[in-house]
Amino acid sequence: MDDAPLVRKHTGDFHWEGVDVLRYKQEGEAPFKDVTRQVLFESASLPAQLRYFEVAPGGHTTLERHEHVHAVMVIRGRGQCLVGEHAYAIGERDLVNVPPMTWHQFRAAADAPLGFLCLVAAERDRPQMPTRDEASQLQQVLDKL
Amino acid sequence: MDDAPLVRKHTGDFHWEGVDVLRYKQEGEAPFKDVTRQVLFESASLPAQLRYFEVAPGGHTTLERHEHVHAVMVIRGRGQCLVGEHAYAIGERDLVNVPPMTWHQFRAAADAPLGFLCLVAAERDRPQMPTRDEASQLQQVLDKL
Repeated sequence: MDDAPLVRKHTGDFHWEGVDVLRYKQEGEAPFKDVTRQVLFESASLPAQLRYFEVAPGGHTTLERHEHVHAVMVIRGRGQCLVGEHAYAIGERDLVNVPPMTWHQFRAAADAPLGFLCLVAAERDRPQMPTRDEASQLQQVLDKL
Repeated sequence: MDDAPLVRKHTGDFHWEGVDVLRYKQEGEAPFKDVTRQVLFESASLPAQLRYFEVAPGGHTTLERHEHVHAVMVIRGRGQCLVGEHAYAIGERDLVNVPPMTWHQFRAAADAPLGFLCLVAAERDRPQMPTRDEASQLQQVLDKL
């Protein structure tokens, strides 16, 4: 962003001038399905970053937790999120707050993408993955929704 | 946000559960017209805040500058912004980057509101106002658009 133009236009379909569509994570790093990542704002002048993630229909982000928090606003489509021990149906403009060390996962609906802004601190710890038992327990919460 | 529910639904018309619609600034503090402010995310766990500002048709924010930066995404309507020495037409999903100590102002179109997310550091300096000469010079840039 420090070298970025002052204004970057939305070019349609949730893409922006000068913003690359990136892998969500490296393949094999953690389980996920059909997610892209775009970094909208990062700057040496700002202690935070704003990213746009898009989960394709039927896809999902990694089930994980970490010390750093997520501040999320859905801006496209709909789906579900798991935060802690509860699952929620979410849609456009809903706000999601992921506190420290709280399990979370975002899933798109079967027939719609789920696109969301995610605000994080610039400095942050690495995510932790659940054990197999933890994962299957959490999975049940999401599947009940 | 620390005490906020994990999910806050959008209740329609750019309002959210548990989010108050606030004055943009105290009356008389600085010149502005028809602007509201909603703080979407602020937390002791996050070194940044995300706010939603809405400028009614024909309204405008204060013309000001400061050391802290703004990372802006328009999410409603359209209008213009002045950043530094240039004015830009902006609309839904466009991104605006306001660098340190750069004059800036956001204006709604005459016939549409301008609603935008604004990401800032949690700790920030107070805005500076232009002198009357500076203001009239900058005004000319916006009026040419």
